[in-house]
Parts: sequence; C-alpha cells; structure tokens
Amino acid sequence: MLIVYGDQTSGNCLKVVWVAAHLGIALDWREVDILRGETRTPAFLALNPDGRVPTLVLEDGRTLAESNAIIGYLARGSALVPADAFARAKMRQWLFWEQYSHEPYIAVRRFQRVCLGRADAEIDPKLAERGHAALALMEGALAGQPFLVGAAVSLADVALVAYTRLAHEGGFDLAPTPALRAWIARVESALGIV
Amino acid sequence: MLIVYGDQTSGNCLKVVWVAAHLGIALDWREVDILRGETRTPAFLALNPDGRVPTLVLEDGRTLAESNAIIGYLARGSALVPADAFARAKMRQWLFWEQYSHEPYIAVRRFQRVCLGRADAEIDPKLAERGHAALALMEGALAGQPFLVGAAVSLADVALVAYTRLAHEGGFDLAPTPALRAWIARVESALGIV
Repeated sequence: MLIVYGDQTSGNCLKVVWVAAHLGIALDWREVDILRGETRTPAFLALNPDGRVPTLVLEDGRTLAESNAIIGYLARGSALVPADAFARAKMRQWLFWEQYSHEPYIAVRRFQRVCLGRADAEIDPKLAERGHAALALMEGALAGQPFLVGAAVSLADVALVAYTRLAHEGGFDLAPTPALRAWIARVESALGIV
Repeated sequence: MLIVYGDQTSGNCLKVVWVAAHLGIALDWREVDILRGETRTPAFLALNPDGRVPTLVLEDGRTLAESNAIIGYLARGSALVPADAFARAKMRQWLFWEQYSHEPYIAVRRFQRVCLGRADAEIDPKLAERGHAALALMEGALAGQPFLVGAAVSLADVALVAYTRLAHEGGFDLAPTPALRAWIARVESALGIV
C-alpha cells in the first residue's frame, strides 16, 4: 500500500487525501505533527531531505514530495487530468501559480494566525495584500466558467480549493468574490469534501 | 508561430528560450521590460492578468503563463520529459520545489542586488539562509547522479539551472558545492547554453 506522511491540518496534505478518496486509492496515512518538529527528525529527513509534508512512499521505497507532484502522480490517467494537451498545460499553470502566488500568502497568513497565534498587526502586510490579489485573480478567472480549467473539475481546483476554502481563517473576506464562493461549494461537492 | 512575451534578463524566461532552441521550435519573441512596468500595462494584463513573463500566446490566441507550465507544454512528448510515470512525477517534484523553495530566495536575492542595486545589509537575511539551504539540498541530490532525475537531462534541470548558474550574482558561493558546479556545466553543455 502507498504510505503518505502528512498533517491533516495542512491543506497541502488534504489535497492528497481528497484525490486518493475520489479515485478509490487506499493510503496508509502516517500523521506527522509539523509544529512538534516531526518533519525535521533525522528519520524524516532521510525520507524527504526537504523536511516537508506531504511525502509519498511507494511500495518499493521510492519517495515523492511536493503536494502538486503527488496528486499528479496519483491522478495520472484519471478524469482529474484533462486529456487535451493544452488543457493539461493550463491545469499545470494553475498548480504552479498556486505554489508561487497563492499558498505563500493565503496559507501562510492563516498559519501565522491560527497555528502560531499571531495578531494581525504582527503579520507582514505583504501577506494580506498579495493574498487579496490572488483571490481577485481567481474571481476574474471563475466569472465565466465553473472550474479553473473549463467545464470539469481538475487537479487545479483540488490544489486551489485547499487553502481558498480556509482563507477566512487567514483573515481574508470572501464576500466581495461571489464567483469564488460559488466555485468553492462546487469543488467541495464534486470532491465530496465536508 | 508561437509568440512569447519575455525579458531576456529573467531566468524564468530563458527556460523557454533554451527549451525552444533545444527542440527546434521557432518563437516570435516579444521583449518586455519588467523594470519599466511593461508587464503591468492594460494591454499586457489582458493577455496575462497575473502580469508576469514569460507568457505564451498560441496561434489561435489562447495564452499560457508560468514558466514551468510553458516549458512542459513545449516539451511534451520530447526526451526532456521522462517516459516513465514515476520519473515524470519526480521531474515535477523538482519543478514545484524550484518555484517554492529555490526561485523565491536565489532569484529574488539576485534581483534585489543586480536589478535593484540593493546592498547585502538591506536584503532580508532569510533570502540568503533559505537560498543556501536550497543549494545544499541540490548538492545532496546530485552527489550520486548526473542529472536531477537520473541519467538524462530533463525539464527539472532546465528549470533549476536557470537561476542556479547565476546564484553567484545573488551572493551565493558555490565553492562548497562541487557536485552542483559540475552539474551546471553538464546541463549548460546538454542544452547548448552559452
């Protein structure tokens, strides 16, 4: 069975949970507590020198890191990956954008508030500014289509819903982005996220 | 012909130049000056609402952003993308890692020094710290193999060499990482980078 080391409070880890459940892939889940330093032990660093979760371990011991690479591997050949080459490229555009322009602001601001207990005044204002810009960009993209890559749910939606649905915990107000709110509900329904 | 909007001083843009040249794909290159705000004009934002280069425009007008999505699209079906599913996933692990854990430190520190003319003391010390950690992780990965995904050059090497070969301009010393230095020369040779 595939082993996944992960932390169920991490949106990056939940992406793997949702994709595996959606595709009927059984996982041997090993819960790792980031805040207790469990991703920085010598044993964990031997599995993933980057010290991050999620980390996937195949039956033969080979390992794979980076949430968006892991869900891509699990979902290969499934309907979560568009068959058309350009649609697949657009899906990957969103996956890279998520890690560069969304997660570092939306997820990190939530982490600092919820997990580290920081007050808003102690948080770098760049996180709110760039997080709002990311949400506005998504609102524009979703104004005319139900999912990020057109008509069907894909890994782009999986990756981006993970922290967007928790953005309010990071202090982001979704009231001005109705298309985004409708999309969150649509993706949660398509993936069976509760 | 494919149109690419890019800035030839940007490593992210050079990835596209190198992959197209390596695969014999003709590009209609449109030079865009980031520092002069040319990625923030209404005309450019209509092409790419994220206001970034590189941006690819197909013959039919469809657009694609994110350097690593663009090179994946151009190189689909070529030897730069491993045929084996797990090797492809490892390649993508490196592509996501590059954008999350390497570029934001190595490329950004270079940008602040070279393009903005900042002194080292004015630069957030986190950039040097995390950049050195990224280079150390690559050194470990390359100690036992010629390229990041095994025996052959792949898009993982393309993406990571872009700013690693310029890391010295960001104030990073590559003397302690001999495997990394040998890898840079190997990738430059494989891709014909001069």
